[in-house]
Amino acid sequence: MAEARIPAAQLRRFVTTAMERLGMRSDHAATVAALMTEAEVQGSDGHGVIRLLPYARRIKAGGINLKPDIRVVKEKAAMALIDGDNGMGHLVMKKAAEIAIAKARQCGIAWVGARLSNHAGPASLYARMAQAQDMVGMYFAVGNANHLPPWGGLDMLLSTNPIAVAVPAGEEPPVVLDMATTVAAYGKVKAKAQRGEQMPVGWMIDRQGQPLTDPKRSEEGFLMPIGGYKGYGLALVVGILAGTLNGAAMGSETIDFNHDDVSVTNTGQAIVAIDPDAFGDLDEFKARVDKLVREMRGSARMPGVDRIWLPGEQSHAKRLDNERFGLELPAALHTQLDAFARDLGIPLLQDTE
Amino acid sequence: MAEARIPAAQLRRFVTTAMERLGMRSDHAATVAALMTEAEVQGSDGHGVIRLLPYARRIKAGGINLKPDIRVVKEKAAMALIDGDNGMGHLVMKKAAEIAIAKARQCGIAWVGARLSNHAGPASLYARMAQAQDMVGMYFAVGNANHLPPWGGLDMLLSTNPIAVAVPAGEEPPVVLDMATTVAAYGKVKAKAQRGEQMPVGWMIDRQGQPLTDPKRSEEGFLMPIGGYKGYGLALVVGILAGTLNGAAMGSETIDFNHDDVSVTNTGQAIVAIDPDAFGDLDEFKARVDKLVREMRGSARMPGVDRIWLPGEQSHAKRLDNERFGLELPAALHTQLDAFARDLGIPLLQDTE
Repeated sequence: MAEARIPAAQLRRFVTTAMERLGMRSDHAATVAALMTEAEVQGSDGHGVIRLLPYARRIKAGGINLKPDIRVVKEKAAMALIDGDNGMGHLVMKKAAEIAIAKARQCGIAWVGARLSNHAGPASLYARMAQAQDMVGMYFAVGNANHLPPWGGLDMLLSTNPIAVAVPAGEEPPVVLDMATTVAAYGKVKAKAQRGEQMPVGWMIDRQGQPLTDPKRSEEGFLMPIGGYKGYGLALVVGILAGTLNGAAMGSETIDFNHDDVSVTNTGQAIVAIDPDAFGDLDEFKARVDKLVREMRGSARMPGVDRIWLPGEQSHAKRLDNERFGLELPAALHTQLDAFARDLGIPLLQDTE
Repeated sequence: MAEARIPAAQLRRFVTTAMERLGMRSDHAATVAALMTEAEVQGSDGHGVIRLLPYARRIKAGGINLKPDIRVVKEKAAMALIDGDNGMGHLVMKKAAEIAIAKARQCGIAWVGARLSNHAGPASLYARMAQAQDMVGMYFAVGNANHLPPWGGLDMLLSTNPIAVAVPAGEEPPVVLDMATTVAAYGKVKAKAQRGEQMPVGWMIDRQGQPLTDPKRSEEGFLMPIGGYKGYGLALVVGILAGTLNGAAMGSETIDFNHDDVSVTNTGQAIVAIDPDAFGDLDEFKARVDKLVREMRGSARMPGVDRIWLPGEQSHAKRLDNERFGLELPAALHTQLDAFARDLGIPLLQDTE
């Protein structure tokens, strides 16, 4: 039986109730729920409501500060550094994005970093906050578990530190790049193992540096950074920009939040807002982006390629569909959320008003 | 017979004389020569003095403005947009870096874009100007020839748009990433062809999307972006940040400067300076970078790996060696420079005082 699609507002209210019941202030619960739901709406399902259970586990274990004093500790005209006081990352980075946008309006560009933050969902969520205000947004983060050694090494000292860039367009959907600095995410490796399929050469290497294609042996190897040593360099500098610059965890300081619900993650993130209006005329900029988008889409195609996509275009289509018809949650996730709701003593998702 | 190593100062004087003879103002000639020589000193030989001949060809053809009025056309507290007036890119981007550093000192961060610029040498040259002032430097550029289609496409609409990030360290060499957004550069493909070797899978694909490994067939295919569609996305957003935002050429507007010496390139570049002192204590930041560098270098290694390198570390070692012992120019380049000097009626490199 196909699950009924869930209106986004219903999921948002369910998550709000859950977060309140876990002890979060109502306004904070509403903010976190809205951003987790927005992640789901834009199709970032690996960073959406699937995270509710690990977040709750961490909150119950005392690994998240439910009454954080999120504050600016350093500030200049075009920058700020935020101390997240170990609160939910969504709260920290929403505040960071708001400050960056306001400062960029004044200065043309602004950069806001955070330390003592936590996982905040998909990188594009915050870059898109700038884009929604007709600015270019950039986002950098240190991941919360190390999956990569330095190039040629064996010690996992780097995470798949992501980059997002969101660019406003005119009539076209915004250009939104949201990428980890590895070829494949671990989730894709697990999916191959479940289906009994081999991985393509290039996803992973083993401890001898040879291609690893059997996903059942994934613990014997490492994810490949994109472009080999180049992706190692990117993961490193993204980590320096988002972590080291802010006094947040980086390298061996990064804990594995999949296996440790208690230690402070000291997650580092950074958001940049750039005002195209400072560089010229906003509408002319958007028209140039439209032209570029259409040029890419209109390119002659390789055999078998039906369509050329722009970064973020599939996510944009997904958002429109989800907003209109509601969210499709996998049955297994639905079952988990039901058990979670019963444990917590709150109405089930399908019973949420 | 091995060529004698050339002191950097001698090469700098030779290039200065050449540029003056080509009609450039003495101070401009000295600046361009210093930056071209610095590219050579740091081992970026593909962007160093080898470019003197194509630059000269372009200047003689009237494709470069020798009396540019390089000026700020838009400005806010933390940003500026420079019109390069089709002058040499080195002049434009040196000015851009100086403005970015001064503004970042005030605002914590600054972003300076350029349009109507030209090829300016290796990306790291300008990111390192910020790093030399104890700031983090970032540089983005639109390349001057398109080598990539959008992912799945056949029309070459994107260049290998590079990214550089330079980070000051304390006792360790600075961390300097300087990378194109493709797996391999065309120069590497040509070298494989000369040696009669095959290319590894992953460097190029043909027009059916299949791996292309015969370098003699390189004109039948395209360079692979790093991480496949991810590198396509990176090349696109770097191009938007460095080109479209500044009103510079992007997509089909990019001319192929290898085959066109006359048309205005309208090259776009951007430099970002970030002051770590605004985020906390500069010395503490540098100490954290040192710790991170040592951690990466100290990782256990794969079999056969002698050493783990940090981005920019090999270039740093090369610089120290070249500063001490002089530059090693390939004999073929030396011969070309001799012919060039005779044509121009200036002393040969080896006769330059």
